[in-house]
Amino acid sequence: MKTYILSIDCPDETGIVHKITGVLFRHGLNIVANGEFVDHRAGRFFMRTEFTGEPELLPGLDDFRGVLPAGHNLRLAEQRKKNIVIMVTTEPHCLGDLLIRHAFENIEANLLAVVGSDDLLRPLTEKFGVPFHFVSHKSKSREQHEEEMLSVLGRYSPEYVVMAKYMRILSEAFIARYPFRIVNIHHSFLPAFMGANPYRQAYERGVKIIGATAHFATKDLDEGPIIAQSVIPVDHTHSWKDMAQAGRDVETIVLARALKLVFEDRVFVRGHRTVIFD
Amino acid sequence: MKTYILSIDCPDETGIVHKITGVLFRHGLNIVANGEFVDHRAGRFFMRTEFTGEPELLPGLDDFRGVLPAGHNLRLAEQRKKNIVIMVTTEPHCLGDLLIRHAFENIEANLLAVVGSDDLLRPLTEKFGVPFHFVSHKSKSREQHEEEMLSVLGRYSPEYVVMAKYMRILSEAFIARYPFRIVNIHHSFLPAFMGANPYRQAYERGVKIIGATAHFATKDLDEGPIIAQSVIPVDHTHSWKDMAQAGRDVETIVLARALKLVFEDRVFVRGHRTVIFD
Amino acid sequence: MKTYILSIDCPDETGIVHKITGVLFRHGLNIVANGEFVDHRAGRFFMRTEFTGEPELLPGLDDFRGVLPAGHNLRLAEQRKKNIVIMVTTEPHCLGDLLIRHAFENIEANLLAVVGSDDLLRPLTEKFGVPFHFVSHKSKSREQHEEEMLSVLGRYSPEYVVMAKYMRILSEAFIARYPFRIVNIHHSFLPAFMGANPYRQAYERGVKIIGATAHFATKDLDEGPIIAQSVIPVDHTHSWKDMAQAGRDVETIVLARALKLVFEDRVFVRGHRTVIFD
Amino acid sequence: MKTYILSIDCPDETGIVHKITGVLFRHGLNIVANGEFVDHRAGRFFMRTEFTGEPELLPGLDDFRGVLPAGHNLRLAEQRKKNIVIMVTTEPHCLGDLLIRHAFENIEANLLAVVGSDDLLRPLTEKFGVPFHFVSHKSKSREQHEEEMLSVLGRYSPEYVVMAKYMRILSEAFIARYPFRIVNIHHSFLPAFMGANPYRQAYERGVKIIGATAHFATKDLDEGPIIAQSVIPVDHTHSWKDMAQAGRDVETIVLARALKLVFEDRVFVRGHRTVIFD
Repeated sequence: MKTYILSIDCPDETGIVHKITGVLFRHGLNIVANGEFVDHRAGRFFMRTEFTGEPELLPGLDDFRGVLPAGHNLRLAEQRKKNIVIMVTTEPHCLGDLLIRHAFENIEANLLAVVGSDDLLRPLTEKFGVPFHFVSHKSKSREQHEEEMLSVLGRYSPEYVVMAKYMRILSEAFIARYPFRIVNIHHSFLPAFMGANPYRQAYERGVKIIGATAHFATKDLDEGPIIAQSVIPVDHTHSWKDMAQAGRDVETIVLARALKLVFEDRVFVRGHRTVIFD
Repeated sequence: MKTYILSIDCPDETGIVHKITGVLFRHGLNIVANGEFVDHRAGRFFMRTEFTGEPELLPGLDDFRGVLPAGHNLRLAEQRKKNIVIMVTTEPHCLGDLLIRHAFENIEANLLAVVGSDDLLRPLTEKFGVPFHFVSHKSKSREQHEEEMLSVLGRYSPEYVVMAKYMRILSEAFIARYPFRIVNIHHSFLPAFMGANPYRQAYERGVKIIGATAHFATKDLDEGPIIAQSVIPVDHTHSWKDMAQAGRDVETIVLARALKLVFEDRVFVRGHRTVIFD
Repeated sequence: MKTYILSIDCPDETGIVHKITGVLFRHGLNIVANGEFVDHRAGRFFMRTEFTGEPELLPGLDDFRGVLPAGHNLRLAEQRKKNIVIMVTTEPHCLGDLLIRHAFENIEANLLAVVGSDDLLRPLTEKFGVPFHFVSHKSKSREQHEEEMLSVLGRYSPEYVVMAKYMRILSEAFIARYPFRIVNIHHSFLPAFMGANPYRQAYERGVKIIGATAHFATKDLDEGPIIAQSVIPVDHTHSWKDMAQAGRDVETIVLARALKLVFEDRVFVRGHRTVIFD
Repeated sequence: MKTYILSIDCPDETGIVHKITGVLFRHGLNIVANGEFVDHRAGRFFMRTEFTGEPELLPGLDDFRGVLPAGHNLRLAEQRKKNIVIMVTTEPHCLGDLLIRHAFENIEANLLAVVGSDDLLRPLTEKFGVPFHFVSHKSKSREQHEEEMLSVLGRYSPEYVVMAKYMRILSEAFIARYPFRIVNIHHSFLPAFMGANPYRQAYERGVKIIGATAHFATKDLDEGPIIAQSVIPVDHTHSWKDMAQAGRDVETIVLARALKLVFEDRVFVRGHRTVIFD
């Protein structure tokens, strides 16, 4: 017996839950967890169904499509670890946390490789027996560099790409290759600071909270749909370097939480927003 | 058009969601929000369905019962403010917060009256035009006092009773009159402290966190099913009186959050645990 | 015996703590709590000393000034409740919380009056026996309106003015009358949203956290030195009205915390930043 | 120029700050940060002073002792990384986090070795070039096993010993060898659960919060002075295994935070309580 996740979003109309659960019922499958949500402003219905059963009982996608209104999105997948590649530059905190979690099977992913725009994190990565690829951007155009990055990624056919402090801005073309399949972690503040040294700005502003946001990368890099956010308190005794360290700690926690939600197929995207069944 | 809440818990079996949503679908009712949860250890299914429709379309309870397994609990109610009575002794913080919320319609309840085992909070209550009843326990047996309290409560037929720092222990007989309809707020710590002055004990222990727990009152007073919990940080500069004040602040917040969940029919009880669709 | 608070900030140099505590020691005064902080980037020293003693033992300000470098700020005051006036428009949540705290002596302030640019909160205020003044802005220039507000404030000679959701922007001239003595509570987000309906924007952006910031009002209204900040989690099930309610809850908590710090003379301002000895 | 930390606790009396800062002033040393706290109930004074200066200017300990009342504790040390050994059994989460932090100099410690009562975490440890010692307890008395552990520890002369999920109870004799120099991380709940499987108990109780406590090990293992505590929210959808995972995540965070405080000499112990200058 296996566990499957059925993810549906479609225009809202009466009877969808009844019809979808009917397909499962008639095939002798057992619902383990079910979440629905209607976004009334958008007139959109979201449903995540976790069910168990023998593989030979599984309906075809057309069985579900037949009872859904036009304009639906549908995904049916066995519950299993996702294949991922991590992209990094030089900061080790998120990568280190994910390597430890991966080594002790505390993350729902097979980490296939790490790709760096810097070579600094190779030793850390290779300690854990994970392949590391250094793709230098020196004397290359952005297009060339991205092409090489995509080429390395392509070798692994990852289902998700994790930007674990990958500090280069991705082009729209790059992101289009992995739509809503690239997760980024972003320092962010209350209020938000743009530009070169956000922690120095936060220090100057005298903030009392440092935050982090995990989101899907979209063409507007830091504007993608938010998956998880959190904050930690700081005060006047924190130098801007202390604030940066506090920021790294909260980034580590928020990215791990976001990836758990994504890898368990709990996250739906609609416009700028996410619907999350946790 | 009205909004209704259907609450079901029953032994888990295949097809329940399909059958229940079928009843709604056939009556032309529209599901607005739906939550299901299966407690696999207990083999128990929980479902909260919020739906809209004209009152004359409403199915009878038997329509739902006909498709449910034996051993189910079923509740169908229009979404509306709950009628409540608050019980207090001398501490004003929770009562004050609830009176303000009630005055500005920021709580899903009609506050019918406040009953005090002390007369101290009468002026605060009456400022807001809410009746206050003082039921002294002086020279009365516990049975006599509870009988009088119940008699006052009975006049208002409250759907829920809120113990907003009511500091007397209720008998099993009292609680049996409002099963899972009495909500209590309890100071509680990490670790928990029993006895006369818990904040002094917390101070002596040097805790770094003060917490509060809102729960249904059951015969084991502080052991009832938990609805909401939260904490706030304290440190060595807090005297035990400061810790008590921190405790009052977190009690106020936690009780308000718990009541919102209860009054919106989001809380199911099963054994010592709650299932909450928030 | 009384308790006094000595607040000093001055250019940093060797020996200040020794010299200041020497003045207290020679006058037979007893230090109860002492906090110092050196802002190395600014080369600035901050010190808050709480001490006890008989009033006749108290040194003159010149005794302290004589041992401090040029460019110092010095404040010496008996520890006592501060005299305050609250300014409001129509939202009751912060005002209600402060009225309850004031009524039960859970705030270090004498609330002398409430001044409203709307008359809506008069009944709530007067329930608690606090004078309410309605200063309409209808058919008045901003200057005229502010002049009238200042005239009402002036009658009470408040030490601090609390903007408990006062929704009009104060002129530079108004703020100059109460420099770093006006505390404002501001909804703020991660990231920050400007403009007409910030909660609707936060909803559209799909934020997972709602925050609030208490700060001193300065000529750049929402840019004043931050005293306290906090957040609460939200999710996709929150409509923008739910987010606004979550925002009000966190505003209430943050404003109360900030006022406690200010009224206990724990907050120093230097540029855009605060130094807080809590 | 170097940085030093002076830590004092002694009976409270008038003038201590003045006298101690006088010693520093006369030796031409510059105070960088200073914290004092008086525990009035215990009549005890605590002071942590961070100062800078040339080593040859440093006063002798007797210079400080001469101005302090009898019954004082005094510690003067250069600010530098502490030498530590970590003790583990089989759980990797805290060790992994500390290894990563150590590898990237994000912890104020030199990690000299890891000692395990199980051999499971050897590969993880050795990946980072840190020696691992397996001290089996099989067919040994508790005394024998502890003697061997102490013998391994002794080889490294650690200043602090970190119990990163070391799951054996230490004897009073063991702890006496490192008084207030052993830091333990303890799952703890609201309310606390004792015994074999605390997470299963927490699940049965339906808690909404999971916590962790870092404390100094004392002869009453889980009763030692608390250094840091934190919690994370859980709900009915968490199985007890999910709660255990949530517990591991919060343990990791709390232990790292506690160690930062200890290694920066910010923690004083008095009875069951800690005074922390953060």
